[in-house]
Amino acid sequence: MVKVAIIGATGYTGMELVRILGRHPEVQIAALTSRQQAGKRYSEVFPGLIGSVDQKISAHDLKAVARQAQLAFLCLPHSESQDAAAALLRHGLKVIDLSADFRLRSVAVYRKWYGPHRHAALLKQAVYGLPEIYRERIPRASLVANPGCYPTSVILGLLPLASAGLMVPEVIADSKSGVSGAGRSPQQNLHFCEVNEGLRAYSIYAHRHTPEIEQEVSAAARTKVRVTFVPHLVPMNRGILSTLYVKLKKKLSAKTLFEVYAGKYREEPFVRVLPLGTLPDVAQVRGTNLTQIGLSLAPSGREAVIIAALDNLVKGAAGAAVQNFNLMQGWPETQGLFSLPLQP
Amino acid sequence: MVKVAIIGATGYTGMELVRILGRHPEVQIAALTSRQQAGKRYSEVFPGLIGSVDQKISAHDLKAVARQAQLAFLCLPHSESQDAAAALLRHGLKVIDLSADFRLRSVAVYRKWYGPHRHAALLKQAVYGLPEIYRERIPRASLVANPGCYPTSVILGLLPLASAGLMVPEVIADSKSGVSGAGRSPQQNLHFCEVNEGLRAYSIYAHRHTPEIEQEVSAAARTKVRVTFVPHLVPMNRGILSTLYVKLKKKLSAKTLFEVYAGKYREEPFVRVLPLGTLPDVAQVRGTNLTQIGLSLAPSGREAVIIAALDNLVKGAAGAAVQNFNLMQGWPETQGLFSLPLQP
Amino acid sequence: MVKVAIIGATGYTGMELVRILGRHPEVQIAALTSRQQAGKRYSEVFPGLIGSVDQKISAHDLKAVARQAQLAFLCLPHSESQDAAAALLRHGLKVIDLSADFRLRSVAVYRKWYGPHRHAALLKQAVYGLPEIYRERIPRASLVANPGCYPTSVILGLLPLASAGLMVPEVIADSKSGVSGAGRSPQQNLHFCEVNEGLRAYSIYAHRHTPEIEQEVSAAARTKVRVTFVPHLVPMNRGILSTLYVKLKKKLSAKTLFEVYAGKYREEPFVRVLPLGTLPDVAQVRGTNLTQIGLSLAPSGREAVIIAALDNLVKGAAGAAVQNFNLMQGWPETQGLFSLPLQP
Amino acid sequence: MVKVAIIGATGYTGMELVRILGRHPEVQIAALTSRQQAGKRYSEVFPGLIGSVDQKISAHDLKAVARQAQLAFLCLPHSESQDAAAALLRHGLKVIDLSADFRLRSVAVYRKWYGPHRHAALLKQAVYGLPEIYRERIPRASLVANPGCYPTSVILGLLPLASAGLMVPEVIADSKSGVSGAGRSPQQNLHFCEVNEGLRAYSIYAHRHTPEIEQEVSAAARTKVRVTFVPHLVPMNRGILSTLYVKLKKKLSAKTLFEVYAGKYREEPFVRVLPLGTLPDVAQVRGTNLTQIGLSLAPSGREAVIIAALDNLVKGAAGAAVQNFNLMQGWPETQGLFSLPLQP
Repeated sequence: MVKVAIIGATGYTGMELVRILGRHPEVQIAALTSRQQAGKRYSEVFPGLIGSVDQKISAHDLKAVARQAQLAFLCLPHSESQDAAAALLRHGLKVIDLSADFRLRSVAVYRKWYGPHRHAALLKQAVYGLPEIYRERIPRASLVANPGCYPTSVILGLLPLASAGLMVPEVIADSKSGVSGAGRSPQQNLHFCEVNEGLRAYSIYAHRHTPEIEQEVSAAARTKVRVTFVPHLVPMNRGILSTLYVKLKKKLSAKTLFEVYAGKYREEPFVRVLPLGTLPDVAQVRGTNLTQIGLSLAPSGREAVIIAALDNLVKGAAGAAVQNFNLMQGWPETQGLFSLPLQP
Repeated sequence: MVKVAIIGATGYTGMELVRILGRHPEVQIAALTSRQQAGKRYSEVFPGLIGSVDQKISAHDLKAVARQAQLAFLCLPHSESQDAAAALLRHGLKVIDLSADFRLRSVAVYRKWYGPHRHAALLKQAVYGLPEIYRERIPRASLVANPGCYPTSVILGLLPLASAGLMVPEVIADSKSGVSGAGRSPQQNLHFCEVNEGLRAYSIYAHRHTPEIEQEVSAAARTKVRVTFVPHLVPMNRGILSTLYVKLKKKLSAKTLFEVYAGKYREEPFVRVLPLGTLPDVAQVRGTNLTQIGLSLAPSGREAVIIAALDNLVKGAAGAAVQNFNLMQGWPETQGLFSLPLQP
Repeated sequence: MVKVAIIGATGYTGMELVRILGRHPEVQIAALTSRQQAGKRYSEVFPGLIGSVDQKISAHDLKAVARQAQLAFLCLPHSESQDAAAALLRHGLKVIDLSADFRLRSVAVYRKWYGPHRHAALLKQAVYGLPEIYRERIPRASLVANPGCYPTSVILGLLPLASAGLMVPEVIADSKSGVSGAGRSPQQNLHFCEVNEGLRAYSIYAHRHTPEIEQEVSAAARTKVRVTFVPHLVPMNRGILSTLYVKLKKKLSAKTLFEVYAGKYREEPFVRVLPLGTLPDVAQVRGTNLTQIGLSLAPSGREAVIIAALDNLVKGAAGAAVQNFNLMQGWPETQGLFSLPLQP
Repeated sequence: MVKVAIIGATGYTGMELVRILGRHPEVQIAALTSRQQAGKRYSEVFPGLIGSVDQKISAHDLKAVARQAQLAFLCLPHSESQDAAAALLRHGLKVIDLSADFRLRSVAVYRKWYGPHRHAALLKQAVYGLPEIYRERIPRASLVANPGCYPTSVILGLLPLASAGLMVPEVIADSKSGVSGAGRSPQQNLHFCEVNEGLRAYSIYAHRHTPEIEQEVSAAARTKVRVTFVPHLVPMNRGILSTLYVKLKKKLSAKTLFEVYAGKYREEPFVRVLPLGTLPDVAQVRGTNLTQIGLSLAPSGREAVIIAALDNLVKGAAGAAVQNFNLMQGWPETQGLFSLPLQP
């Protein structure tokens, strides 16, 4: 049994880690921390866990955490993660950071989008936690930067075309997310009545996931790829659907397009390339660590619309973190992660 | 044109008043006040009103309001309304108060449920603004206490049986409300993801609408009626459905039960007694000032289930306020209030 | 009073026409027809209208309709509208057709997307009912082809750039619609549980609104414009949000972009260009005949994301039909159409 | 590994059995049958299961099923289950029937509510599959009648008071259900737009779950208990919340009330009695086999409101069936059933 800590355990991501790790056969949750809820039982905050997760929430005392756990999942706001990760690493723990603090390899890019980085040296050490790209490096990492929810959907949707060099390096990513992606803190614009029966875009040309997407897609394509990324808020709890508009460098047949994707992902346990004519639905991945990918080729054969769907709290956050955790421990990658979608 | 002010105009009730009054032929909105949003245009707060309601929001300066308007709609939290109503009445305005501050006729009952009342004398002066009961008194009132949303549904659902003396004076009211009834302020338990796909009861034996319901049903029945009132929160924006369980003092036929209701409400412009076998749905009154009532008689003929449905922001708040306003002005009661339901 | 008929009155579009015309001061609904519900009262089908719209539904007898009404709104499936329109025109009625049967000016294009057209001559006679483009022609038309819901949002979103010659003629339109756009007939994929908490794209490269969009945008641009149109189904009742990705022929400033739109739509009663920095939300137009347009310029100044939002049943169908009706009658265009959004 | 068949596998209950059994360590799904979908892969019907459950759906050939499986879960409409159960039992299979066909012990009561029973002898043999009452008998049963979703919530909510003889034998059960309880077949009144943003009661005094509830509560109370049962349809996928109004035979303290419940359910793995002051929410049991129970005592100490919440597809159907299955096999009752709620 490996002892883990969840730092910032009372947001949606922390809660989802608890849900997933609750079924993992090799894990003991040694510490659940929260700044505001310390002292309460976890099940006082989430009464659905009464009788299941009644352990006490502790304060953000990283030294104490270091004594209790071998690995920490950080569910902190960006910028706060920087110091916490540095401290825990110093204490010898492994760290999986679910914030954006270690995802960007360039300090300059980080500074532009998020502000100054106080532990820039760690950016080199961190491994971007997308096993579909970095499966080889993750097992040796002590610091894994868990990908953003939107980026996972866009990157997995583009990766086969990008790495095959088939894609014109200008892409449009029109992404739609459920509301849990915006976190659990009450806000006027996340009030039930402000979201329900509504639909809106936000942060056009300005969303912080843009550089993360461009970094990874460019790396895969071995050329600078520009991504126009527009996120939308959809009245549902979970799920991201990204609709990706790509131009192809050469004319393809639908069968070839399918083969490019099916070939790339044949061995992937958590990516499902749907047969031509079948399109993803976020409802079909709810509660699972899967990404569904659907393919449509333009009649011209020179353009394609790629759809990627995932559950933002699982493959977009906590599930991916556990997948990385399994890799870091040398366990089967799917351990504790198998589940069929909760549908309806 | 009558000049009116909406005090506390940026909550859902204020917003709905603006929507309804926007179509009223005899009204000019002379002032919209808000403590937090003063200085902005109303359409900056609600971009759906850009080009439609661009007037400036003013501060809560009641003297200024008194110079601008002849009548004020108070959309303030309970207790705050007390002083505002007293001040505006002193300045010669008529007041329609949408809070609970003047609904209870007994100071002692008010104190028990809400705390001390600083203007108890006004409780005698205030008229409870349910035209279906107090149509005769409202035109002469200078202070109208607009009913609560839950109470309107329960009282209208029980009134025919109560006033006909047919009801055993112990009733169960199981009420379900959309989320707008809880107001527009962000709160953890009103966050989209905490409500959506959820369902819960709250404030059992402790909801402040209980004494208001009991006061009016008892008055109608000319005997003390005890109401067990349990409200529930339902994942939808608007609507209240109250399911009322009543025992009858004598055996009735379904036809007689229907006649009791149809007779009582025959002349009412905003109450619809549905034919036997048809049941209300909050969707069928959305955006309207209607209350739908459905009737089911037990096979024994000694009990009945009465269902009442209304839109909590219209007949449960702003629409009723305009209905009262029309009566106070001597205008046709339905003026500016006719609309067919927005369905779906 | 003008007497009108609604042919196919029991779908969502027919229902919405009834809702809107119910408040129109100059209209009498002389006939409501339905193949399946003939003989019932309209309020038996829609109990929300009991006491409001109790008139009988008649069969699809066009001769009878011709005796009763001066103008007919056709809410029939495409292809069925062809014969009905032809017959009613022969009988001297004016016709507003809400199907796709007369929207395409080219018989060949119609045939490709919908099948054979039995009244091709009428295609020349029909006027495309988008007042923002064809305001001059609609008053003289006897047959108006009411635009599709998606096309209205995309065309209005592109019109200013297209007609100013500023747009590269390849556009991506990523559109999202509420479920009422798919009609009222029960279907497996429209069952509540199959839609709620789900999100999916459909008909990629194959949606029949594509040629309609291309026809009108190309005409405005005076050059062939290719539109990649991808619709999505969103779990909400009403609303369309179209996210439009355009490349500009020359570098613009944000201010200039805004001026292009504000200038074009300055006199339009039902188009609202939002200030820079404010984005549309379908909730902000619910129940209204408005289209909201939001503008975002890329940092490069060479690309823009345009967002257009409307209520698919109002400006996307019944409201636009009444707007056309007003124009055909020589009445003020906004008559019976003013309303503030039902929010929340 | 035990081989099981799911008869009628393409409804929501069948689908949920597949989801749950997919994680059960001791089960092999040997047959999935469907009348309409036979011949397809299961994952063609539910694309969320592509790559996970690709086995072929077979026809309703019970002889073939009898060769393949040792136990069958019947997910058929009531009345159809009768013959299927009889046939499979004859072939030596054990049967868990999720319809209502074997829940009522009285042939006369069955006939009154459902029509004639062709295998009345089996009614004696069947065990009502609520382990909280019949845990001793289920292991020896060859035919288990899995309880209805509403009845489970009402019976578990009343059981402690009933079996302690504390309850006046007249109870009101106001139940609210998500839409999946109405099945997967498309119907006008289950169309997304007809349910979303709506709320309605149905089948008042006439719902077929009434006799099932009365049978079990009466048995527990050892006296005839009359239950007024009113179900409501709520716009959410899953979940039942039953609000139970009971009168007590003697005055109780809140602490005693709590002890009655906590004592009764102390050993139950799937019932959670919430601490006084905490109320259930269907969101807190989503995807789990749990029932949450919340208690409120009237100030008089003579009445109580009991709230019971469960997931209608899990504890209300498929989860309970697997719990029964575990008992019939002599396995730990919780095997394959542990999960934390999918929240949000």
